[in-house]
Amino acid sequence: MVKIGIAGASGYTGLELIRLLAGHPEAELTVLTSETFQGQNIAEVFPSLNGVVDLKLRPLDDSITQDCSVLFLALPHIAAMDKLPVYLQSDCKTIDLSADYRLKDPKEYSDWYSVTHTHPDLLEQAVYGLPELHRKAIQTARFIANPGCYPTSVILALAPLLKTGWVDLSSIISDSKSGVSGAGRKPSLSTHYVEVNEGISPYGLASHRHTPEMEQELSALAGKPVRLTFSPHLVPMTRGMLSTVYINLNKPISDEKLVEHYRSFYKDEYFVRVLNPGKFASSQHVRSSNFCDIGLKVDSRNQRLIITSALDNLIKGASGQAIQNMNIMLGLDEKMGLTAPAIFP
Amino acid sequence: MVKIGIAGASGYTGLELIRLLAGHPEAELTVLTSETFQGQNIAEVFPSLNGVVDLKLRPLDDSITQDCSVLFLALPHIAAMDKLPVYLQSDCKTIDLSADYRLKDPKEYSDWYSVTHTHPDLLEQAVYGLPELHRKAIQTARFIANPGCYPTSVILALAPLLKTGWVDLSSIISDSKSGVSGAGRKPSLSTHYVEVNEGISPYGLASHRHTPEMEQELSALAGKPVRLTFSPHLVPMTRGMLSTVYINLNKPISDEKLVEHYRSFYKDEYFVRVLNPGKFASSQHVRSSNFCDIGLKVDSRNQRLIITSALDNLIKGASGQAIQNMNIMLGLDEKMGLTAPAIFP
Amino acid sequence: MVKIGIAGASGYTGLELIRLLAGHPEAELTVLTSETFQGQNIAEVFPSLNGVVDLKLRPLDDSITQDCSVLFLALPHIAAMDKLPVYLQSDCKTIDLSADYRLKDPKEYSDWYSVTHTHPDLLEQAVYGLPELHRKAIQTARFIANPGCYPTSVILALAPLLKTGWVDLSSIISDSKSGVSGAGRKPSLSTHYVEVNEGISPYGLASHRHTPEMEQELSALAGKPVRLTFSPHLVPMTRGMLSTVYINLNKPISDEKLVEHYRSFYKDEYFVRVLNPGKFASSQHVRSSNFCDIGLKVDSRNQRLIITSALDNLIKGASGQAIQNMNIMLGLDEKMGLTAPAIFP
Amino acid sequence: MVKIGIAGASGYTGLELIRLLAGHPEAELTVLTSETFQGQNIAEVFPSLNGVVDLKLRPLDDSITQDCSVLFLALPHIAAMDKLPVYLQSDCKTIDLSADYRLKDPKEYSDWYSVTHTHPDLLEQAVYGLPELHRKAIQTARFIANPGCYPTSVILALAPLLKTGWVDLSSIISDSKSGVSGAGRKPSLSTHYVEVNEGISPYGLASHRHTPEMEQELSALAGKPVRLTFSPHLVPMTRGMLSTVYINLNKPISDEKLVEHYRSFYKDEYFVRVLNPGKFASSQHVRSSNFCDIGLKVDSRNQRLIITSALDNLIKGASGQAIQNMNIMLGLDEKMGLTAPAIFP
Repeated sequence: MVKIGIAGASGYTGLELIRLLAGHPEAELTVLTSETFQGQNIAEVFPSLNGVVDLKLRPLDDSITQDCSVLFLALPHIAAMDKLPVYLQSDCKTIDLSADYRLKDPKEYSDWYSVTHTHPDLLEQAVYGLPELHRKAIQTARFIANPGCYPTSVILALAPLLKTGWVDLSSIISDSKSGVSGAGRKPSLSTHYVEVNEGISPYGLASHRHTPEMEQELSALAGKPVRLTFSPHLVPMTRGMLSTVYINLNKPISDEKLVEHYRSFYKDEYFVRVLNPGKFASSQHVRSSNFCDIGLKVDSRNQRLIITSALDNLIKGASGQAIQNMNIMLGLDEKMGLTAPAIFP
Repeated sequence: MVKIGIAGASGYTGLELIRLLAGHPEAELTVLTSETFQGQNIAEVFPSLNGVVDLKLRPLDDSITQDCSVLFLALPHIAAMDKLPVYLQSDCKTIDLSADYRLKDPKEYSDWYSVTHTHPDLLEQAVYGLPELHRKAIQTARFIANPGCYPTSVILALAPLLKTGWVDLSSIISDSKSGVSGAGRKPSLSTHYVEVNEGISPYGLASHRHTPEMEQELSALAGKPVRLTFSPHLVPMTRGMLSTVYINLNKPISDEKLVEHYRSFYKDEYFVRVLNPGKFASSQHVRSSNFCDIGLKVDSRNQRLIITSALDNLIKGASGQAIQNMNIMLGLDEKMGLTAPAIFP
Repeated sequence: MVKIGIAGASGYTGLELIRLLAGHPEAELTVLTSETFQGQNIAEVFPSLNGVVDLKLRPLDDSITQDCSVLFLALPHIAAMDKLPVYLQSDCKTIDLSADYRLKDPKEYSDWYSVTHTHPDLLEQAVYGLPELHRKAIQTARFIANPGCYPTSVILALAPLLKTGWVDLSSIISDSKSGVSGAGRKPSLSTHYVEVNEGISPYGLASHRHTPEMEQELSALAGKPVRLTFSPHLVPMTRGMLSTVYINLNKPISDEKLVEHYRSFYKDEYFVRVLNPGKFASSQHVRSSNFCDIGLKVDSRNQRLIITSALDNLIKGASGQAIQNMNIMLGLDEKMGLTAPAIFP
Repeated sequence: MVKIGIAGASGYTGLELIRLLAGHPEAELTVLTSETFQGQNIAEVFPSLNGVVDLKLRPLDDSITQDCSVLFLALPHIAAMDKLPVYLQSDCKTIDLSADYRLKDPKEYSDWYSVTHTHPDLLEQAVYGLPELHRKAIQTARFIANPGCYPTSVILALAPLLKTGWVDLSSIISDSKSGVSGAGRKPSLSTHYVEVNEGISPYGLASHRHTPEMEQELSALAGKPVRLTFSPHLVPMTRGMLSTVYINLNKPISDEKLVEHYRSFYKDEYFVRVLNPGKFASSQHVRSSNFCDIGLKVDSRNQRLIITSALDNLIKGASGQAIQNMNIMLGLDEKMGLTAPAIFP
């Protein structure tokens, strides 16, 4: 059994890590941290864990790496930045769910996050933990920067196209929609039930911090700079994410040919399901699973491709992907603990 | 008082007409039809109307125009097509909320609706009832084709741009999101609570029937053929619609300049609210009102404009707009009965 | 026109007062206060009011009564307690939506609210503003304690029975269900979208502060002490309240006889709708209206009556009722500004 | 591996059986039936099962028992009644999720279901599959009548009290609340998103068909006839059930003593979690798990006990309990395949 620590256990991605790891055959939860709830049992904070997990919350300090061999950081952005170098001095493999080490270029980080990166030297060491693209590097990594939820949905939607020459890389738009759990557990007016319910709201149009992360990965795949317009929206639902991605085609292509190409590209990827031609991805059908569904539809009147990409923001978009990374790092079956089907309805 | 008839009173747009007209100072409801519920009082069908409206439902027959001088047709598509010529022989002014007379070109109709139009001669007589564009023609019309909800949100979002030369008319994409009431009251798996709830689903991508209606109006405004990619999505909420519209800019323009231009374009339009620069439209803030909110945001990194356009699909997207048309046809104050503020929360 | 002030205009009951009064033919909004948002226009705080209300928020100070002749206090509990005596020295008629002056007995107040009442002498002056029971006193009152949402639904459900001798007054249970807007606009974990959504939760069982208010009014009606078991629940919806009230019958009675009795009791009450025998009240059918729907159903196998009582917690349960009280105090038509039908769907 | 058949695989309880059994270490799905979708792959009907279950739907005929050794009947009420005797002639162990064989008294069946039972002789053979009460009989049963969702929540809430003498058995009321999935997948106006959303509705007050099932079991526990008032309500959520149960106490008892008694009564029951004194059960915390949470709260002012009992209507209220029964019948670990923690949020 591998001893597991979770820093920031009382947030939603922390809780989701706990829940998924409680059913993982090789994992043993040994460290859970929370500043707010320290001293309480995790099942007091989350009654859903009653009778399932029995562990006390402790403060986040430097000693926690003594009690685990894999450490997940489910902390707010910035908070992880200075903790990480300390943890890297231990033998603990570390998976950081924050954005702090995702960007290779410290200037990009300061431009989008309005703060100077305090450990730019470590950025190159961090492996961007999208297994479908970086599995090899993850296998030998000690330190993973776990992707954001939006980037996972958008990068997986576009990855198979970037080397084909079929598309106009200057025309990418992702209109993305997320459930409210993506905003975290800290109460605020923008997550108040009454403000969110029965409405659909754009936010952060053309300025959301997940943009450079997508562009970094898409550019690497394309072998040249790629930019996109990214428009996130808040949907009145707890979980789920859908990206509707638009890209102009350089020539007519059929849905069938595209599906075939995508299925070939993802042929070894259990967690990416390419739908039949003409089918659209819906967040309902991946809810509570680690799957990313991808649908392909050509708008032939306008020679434009519409890609729909759906995932559960807390699982493939965060904690499930983090566990997938852990499995790879530890040489375990990549799917271990992650095969629960989507729960519908 | 003007005597009002509503054909198809037991659907959602019918109900919304009743509710709004019950508070209209010049309207008197005299005819409500329903095949399914004929013989029942409307307040038995909709307990929300208890103590407010007291009228029996009668079948849809040719005599109804004898008892009203304005007739709203809130019937399913196709159903209105053959009824209309009969009603046009009466003195009744008619406002058709279906799609049957919205397209000028009968071939477009048969292409998109898969049925041959039986009265193509009447298509030219119908006035497309978007007051912000066609007020003059509406004033003297006897017969209005009331716009669809999606087209209202998209056309109002784009109208001010089409003559400016600022934009690339071949680059238009509308990613639109609707509440479930837009799908009507007939039970089906796709409107079942459990299927819709907690999920976001695209449907009819690049093939939705509202597309030609938008293209007809946008082309007329531009003075040349305009096409767009239209992507509707179903959102788990009862009411509300948001269109996020993308269009490439031919040159850099500021949010401020765009807002100024839109405000000038809509300066006499009470029901179009152009938001301050940098503000996005949200469906919550127009819910249950006849307003359409428009927000403008330039993605300067990609020289692309993102327009957010929000309305209540049952009001400005259907019944409220129909009453606005009625007011214009009757020479009444255009806002009469329609000034209730949005209900938030 | 009557000049109106609203203290606490940036909360949900404040907003609802603004919205309703914006359409009231005799009201002119002159004072809106908010500590948090002072200096901003109310339409910046609530974009739903854009183009409808144009007034700046000012701080809550003693001078506000100089600019209005009716003052609504939509402040948190306790906050209104010490402000009220000051306002009473002006000519302003005051309607307090908080609980601070609802209980006649200061000991009851301190028992349930865990704070000593600082102005017990004023408690007798306050008129409990439930027009269906206290219309006469309201007409001449200068100072109204506006009822809570739960008490309104429960007292109206039971009032017709208390003098009949038909029921066992020791057997009353109210199992009540509320939408989330009842919890106010202040962000907290218990109103976080993700915590509330897709769940039904009891809270404050047998200890909720609205209990003594119900018992005070029911005892007064019965002419002897009446107690009840009160169980509130939080339902994942924005607005709406349903109380399912249970009481044992002393002898068999039919649904028809009960409906007849209730209709007779409420024969002059526009805002109370007694449903046909066998019909149940649902919150959907009163949403956004000032109606309270009451349904009656005898469980004859157990000689027990089940009363269902539905209202909109922000309207008949708060701001609508407050305006109803204002209308009575001013000698206006009691229904003025409050006749908008329920919005369904 | 045990070969499993599911008759009625395209409804919600059928789907939930499939999903749970797909992760059950000893189960192999071999037969799925559906009249509507026969010939299609189950993953076409439910895209959530894509890549997880790959089986074609076949019609419901008498031969299906040749291909499985456990058969679940997830058919509508009445439909199972005549099929069952046929299946009982095979070696197949059968678990019927309908109500057809739950009542021992055929007269009760005809009284509440308005149809004469065609196989009254088989009623005595059926074991009522509530493991916490009837585990021993289930072990040797060939034929289980799986309990309804409401009865499971109410019977577990009350079972520990019935022999104590602490309570007045003539005073039982259960005010129960259910998510919409309990109404099944067949589209109807009462499950239409727009009709259900944003409202709370009572239905079937004092006349719901689950009543006699509760009374049968409670009477058996008490050793004398017990009746109750049962009030179901529809809540705008997909899954989840909460029963708030009221019963008068014969003498004062503390929350602590009650909790201790309940914990003793359920000490060997993994799936019943008795909450700490003063804690209430919420449906959120059992969602998607097989747990039933029970909270106890004395209303000492009225000497009345309030029991809150929460479960997931599709799992402990239907398919999870059916699998629990299967495990017991097969001599497997009762928890096998059912230990997934609740998913919150």
